[in-house]
Amino acid sequence: MQNEPTVAYGDQVLFVNRERKTFLRRIKPGGRLQTHQGVILYDDLIGLPFGYRLQTHLGEPVWMLRPSLDDVILNLRRESQIIYPKDLGYILLKLGIQPGCRVIEAGTGCGGLTLTLAAMVGPEGMVYSYERREKMQAIAQDNLRLAGLDSRVTFFLRDVAEGFDQEDVHALFLDMHNPWEFLGQAHRALQGGGFLGALVPTINQVAVLVDALHSEQWFMVEVEELLLRQYKTSPGRIRPEDQMVAHTGYLIFARKLAGGVPLAGDRTLEEGDEGAMQD
Amino acid sequence: MQNEPTVAYGDQVLFVNRERKTFLRRIKPGGRLQTHQGVILYDDLIGLPFGYRLQTHLGEPVWMLRPSLDDVILNLRRESQIIYPKDLGYILLKLGIQPGCRVIEAGTGCGGLTLTLAAMVGPEGMVYSYERREKMQAIAQDNLRLAGLDSRVTFFLRDVAEGFDQEDVHALFLDMHNPWEFLGQAHRALQGGGFLGALVPTINQVAVLVDALHSEQWFMVEVEELLLRQYKTSPGRIRPEDQMVAHTGYLIFARKLAGGVPLAGDRTLEEGDEGAMQD
Amino acid sequence: MQNEPTVAYGDQVLFVNRERKTFLRRIKPGGRLQTHQGVILYDDLIGLPFGYRLQTHLGEPVWMLRPSLDDVILNLRRESQIIYPKDLGYILLKLGIQPGCRVIEAGTGCGGLTLTLAAMVGPEGMVYSYERREKMQAIAQDNLRLAGLDSRVTFFLRDVAEGFDQEDVHALFLDMHNPWEFLGQAHRALQGGGFLGALVPTINQVAVLVDALHSEQWFMVEVEELLLRQYKTSPGRIRPEDQMVAHTGYLIFARKLAGGVPLAGDRTLEEGDEGAMQD
Amino acid sequence: MQNEPTVAYGDQVLFVNRERKTFLRRIKPGGRLQTHQGVILYDDLIGLPFGYRLQTHLGEPVWMLRPSLDDVILNLRRESQIIYPKDLGYILLKLGIQPGCRVIEAGTGCGGLTLTLAAMVGPEGMVYSYERREKMQAIAQDNLRLAGLDSRVTFFLRDVAEGFDQEDVHALFLDMHNPWEFLGQAHRALQGGGFLGALVPTINQVAVLVDALHSEQWFMVEVEELLLRQYKTSPGRIRPEDQMVAHTGYLIFARKLAGGVPLAGDRTLEEGDEGAMQD
Repeated sequence: MQNEPTVAYGDQVLFVNRERKTFLRRIKPGGRLQTHQGVILYDDLIGLPFGYRLQTHLGEPVWMLRPSLDDVILNLRRESQIIYPKDLGYILLKLGIQPGCRVIEAGTGCGGLTLTLAAMVGPEGMVYSYERREKMQAIAQDNLRLAGLDSRVTFFLRDVAEGFDQEDVHALFLDMHNPWEFLGQAHRALQGGGFLGALVPTINQVAVLVDALHSEQWFMVEVEELLLRQYKTSPGRIRPEDQMVAHTGYLIFARKLAGGVPLAGDRTLEEGDEGAMQD
Repeated sequence: MQNEPTVAYGDQVLFVNRERKTFLRRIKPGGRLQTHQGVILYDDLIGLPFGYRLQTHLGEPVWMLRPSLDDVILNLRRESQIIYPKDLGYILLKLGIQPGCRVIEAGTGCGGLTLTLAAMVGPEGMVYSYERREKMQAIAQDNLRLAGLDSRVTFFLRDVAEGFDQEDVHALFLDMHNPWEFLGQAHRALQGGGFLGALVPTINQVAVLVDALHSEQWFMVEVEELLLRQYKTSPGRIRPEDQMVAHTGYLIFARKLAGGVPLAGDRTLEEGDEGAMQD
Repeated sequence: MQNEPTVAYGDQVLFVNRERKTFLRRIKPGGRLQTHQGVILYDDLIGLPFGYRLQTHLGEPVWMLRPSLDDVILNLRRESQIIYPKDLGYILLKLGIQPGCRVIEAGTGCGGLTLTLAAMVGPEGMVYSYERREKMQAIAQDNLRLAGLDSRVTFFLRDVAEGFDQEDVHALFLDMHNPWEFLGQAHRALQGGGFLGALVPTINQVAVLVDALHSEQWFMVEVEELLLRQYKTSPGRIRPEDQMVAHTGYLIFARKLAGGVPLAGDRTLEEGDEGAMQD
Repeated sequence: MQNEPTVAYGDQVLFVNRERKTFLRRIKPGGRLQTHQGVILYDDLIGLPFGYRLQTHLGEPVWMLRPSLDDVILNLRRESQIIYPKDLGYILLKLGIQPGCRVIEAGTGCGGLTLTLAAMVGPEGMVYSYERREKMQAIAQDNLRLAGLDSRVTFFLRDVAEGFDQEDVHALFLDMHNPWEFLGQAHRALQGGGFLGALVPTINQVAVLVDALHSEQWFMVEVEELLLRQYKTSPGRIRPEDQMVAHTGYLIFARKLAGGVPLAGDRTLEEGDEGAMQD
C-alpha cells in the first residue's frame, strides 16, 4: 500500500546522495544500490521509515525517499523526448482525468504520459496506448512495469491511421508529428464532448493543427504553453536559476462536438449529423 | 458514473453559448438554465449526449459539455484568491498525489485545491482540510458539495497553530500567509519523506520560508513558478494573447527528513533524532 | 540643452500626480496643466529644478520630471499598435544603431520607432521613414515635432513596393503586415552586411518571413521575443504584477549578404553575384 | 566613419564561419585571422564590402560583417558577469540616454554597460565609470579601446563610498552587490529628476533596495525583469530554443526627488528640503 511509511520489498525508492544525485530503484530481496560513494544492501532497509538517512559501507550519507510522480517521470528510461511534469500535471486537469477514467493516447513513446495517466485513473480506470514502433513500446512497457502500473494499461502495436479499437473514451491525447491526420479516428473514439489533447513542438505544426480543428467536429480550441522557472534556494541569495527549459511543446486542447438539434440557418453541423438528430 | 456519455440527473454540466460564455450547473429535475439568450429546461436534456448542441427557447445555440477539473476550478464560487489550474496540476505531480492518498491542506480557502485533491485521491483517499474562518469553510463546503466530492474531505474549523489531528499523511500543503510558523506541526503530521508544499505570493515570504526550511527537518527544498501563455487561435493569425497572468504565487516544495543512522562528525541531525536511532 | 537641471520654455515635461497618473506636456509661455486635482501655470515653473514637487491651485501635489524615452513612447498620440519600449531598446542594439547612423523604417505608423531611432542617431544621423497612409504619417509627424526630433527624420508618403530612395543605409526595419514582399527592396537599400529587422505579431507571419529569409541574400536569421515582467514594489510585499503584456510581436533579424569570392562547388551565391566577383 | 560600406584599417570586423562561430577582430596592417578552417590576411580585405563572403587559404568560406553593439558585448573579454543586451537596450530607454548625455556608472566591471553607454552618448557625451578593483578596470579599459570608444569614458579607480566627483548628471547606474549603501552618494550626483538604475541578481537584494528607495529622496520606484526567448529558424520547423537564459538580474529604476513647495500636512519631504524651498 503506497501510504505505508516504511520500506517494503517491491517499493520504488528514490535514493539521494550528498550532491543531490538521485537513484530510482525498486527494492528486491538480495539487491543493492551501488554508487561511487559506496554500497547499500536493500535487505537492510526493510521496515525503515522513508525520509531516513542511511550510510553506505564507506560511511557516506544517502537519503531514502518515496518518489513523486515527478521523480519517476524524470528518471524514466527514455529514447525519445518526454513530456515534462509541468505539462503532464496541466494535461491531467485540462483532460478532466480522474480515478476511473478510460483514456487513449498515441503514441506511447517511452511511456511518461502513459505512466502519469495510469497513476491517476487508478485501478478502476484504463489507459489504451497506441504505438507503431516495437522498440519504443517495449521501453514503455518496461517503464510501466518498473512503476508497478502496467496492469492499468492496454498496449497496442499499431499505426493509428487504422483507427482506435475503443469508443466513448473520456479523453484522447495525440503526441505525434502529424496529429491533424488522425482527427477523424480521434473523433470516432471519443464520447460526446470528450477531451482531445495534443502536443507539438513547432509553430508550423500548431498552424496546421489549429486549421484542422476549426471544423464542425471540434469546439473550444485552445493553444497554450507552460514555462517553468526554478529558483536557487541558498538562504540570503535566492534567485532564479541561470538557465531554464525554454520550450518543450505547444499544448493544444479541444472538445468533441457530437451533433445537435437542428437550427434554422445553421452552418456549424454536417448534413449527416443533422439527420441523425431528427429521431 | 462519470464516463457515461449521456446526461443524467445529478451530473455537473458546462453550458457554453455562442460567445463562449460558460455556465457550470448541476442538473436537477425541474431545473432550468436561464441566460440572456433564452432558457433551457434540464428535463429535456436527460439522455442526450455530451458535446451536443442545444437550442434555447429563443432559438439560440448552447453547447453542453462535461466540465474538466479546470472548468470547475475556474467557475468556483470564491471570496479569496484561488490557486490556478496551471499550478494545481503541477502540485499534484510534485506531491505524488494518487488514488488512495491521505493529504492535509491548510487553509481551505474557497476549496479549489481541496476539490482538486479530492478528485485525484479518489473514493479510497481522504483530504483533511483546515480553515479557521467559518465563512470561507462554508463556501468551500458548498463548492465541494456542488462538485459531488464532499465525501472525500474531512473539514476542520481550527487554527493550525494547534496542530493537525492526522499522522503519517502522504503530503501536506500550506496555503497561508505565514507558512514558516507551522513547519513544526507539518513535520509531525507527515510520514517520513512526506511531501510538503506551499504557495506564497511575495518574494519576502519566499525568503523567510526558504530560510526556515534549511534545517535538519527538511530536504530537497525547491522554489518554482509556472507561467501559462495562452494563444489566440484564429486560423492564419495564431499568436499569443495580448495579456497573461504574470503571477499567482511561488510554489515551494520540500521533503520531511525522519532521522537516520548515526554518522561520524555529522551535523545534520538533532540530538533527539540521533538518540532515537540507537536502538 | 537636454541636460540642464531646470525647466525652460520648450522643454518636454512629465507631470505625475499622487496616484502616479502621468501628463506629458511641452512648456509654452502662458500655458497650463489642467487636471482634476487643480491647475498649474507653466510660467511659474521656469527655472525650477526637475524632480521638484509642485502644488496645484487646489493644494494637491504634482511632481515634475524630465521624461525618459520610455515615458515619451508610452504617451504618444497613437492610432495603431506601438512597438513597446522593451522591444525598442533591444532593436537599437541588434541593429547597431549609434549616433551618426542612417536608417530606414517602413511603415512609420504613429512614429514610436521613428522617434526612438531619431533620438539615438543624434543630429548627425538621419531616419528615412516610409508610410503610405497619409493620416498615420501626419500623426507621426506631430509626435516627432512634439518631441523636438522632426529635423532628424525624412518622411516619405509612399508604398514601399516602389522601393526606397536610399542606398547603403546602415539598417532597415520593416514594421508591416507582409514584410516578406519587400525583401528585394530592402536588400537594395542596405549596405553590405547591413542590419535588417522586422516585427510581426503572428506565428503564421513568422513562418513565411523565415522561409523567405533563407536565401542567398540574407545571413544569420534570428527570431526572438522579449517578455517584460513588472513587480509591485510595496516594501515587505514585493511580487510580480498580477497581469503582464504576454505578446507584442516576434522580432526577426538578419544581415544582408553582398556577394563573395568564388568558391568551388558553392551553392550559396546566385549566378549574377559570382560574375560580379571575378574582376 | 562607421557607415562606410567597405572595410578599412581600424575597423572592427565580425568574421563568421560555416558553423556560425564568430570572431570579432580589429583590422590592422599585416594582421591575420587564424582559424581551424584556415587563414585570412587582413590586407586582402581593405576596400571589400561588408556582408562579403571570403575564402580562407584552405578554401573554407568566412563571412565578414560589421558588428552590432550586441555582437561586441557578447564578445567582450570578461572576468565577471556581464549585463546582457536584452537588459542593456532597455536600460538605455529607461534612463533616457541620448547623444550628449553625461552618465555615471559604478562599478565598471568588464565594461559592457560602459561600452553601450559610450556608444549612445556619442562624442558630445561622457560616461564616468567608477571601479575599485584595478584589474577589472584594466580589462574594461582594454575593451573600450578595442571598440574605439575609450575617449568617451572617464575612469575612476575608487570605492564609491567616497562619493562621485560629478554633479547634475543625467543618469546613474549602480551595478554593485549592495547598491542601497550608496543611495546618498547617487542622490548628490544626480540632477533633479535624474534617472537612477540598478541591477541585482537576488530577491533578497531586491527587498533591501526597494525598502531603501521608499524614502523622500526617490520617486517612481520600479522593479522589472526581461526574459529573452530565441527561436530555432529551420524553415518548416520553427520553434523556441530548448534552453534559455532564465535570469540575469532584476532591474530597478527610480527618479531623484529634488525638493518642492511646502505642502500643508505633508510628510514626503525632509525638514532640510522644506527649509530650502522658502526662499
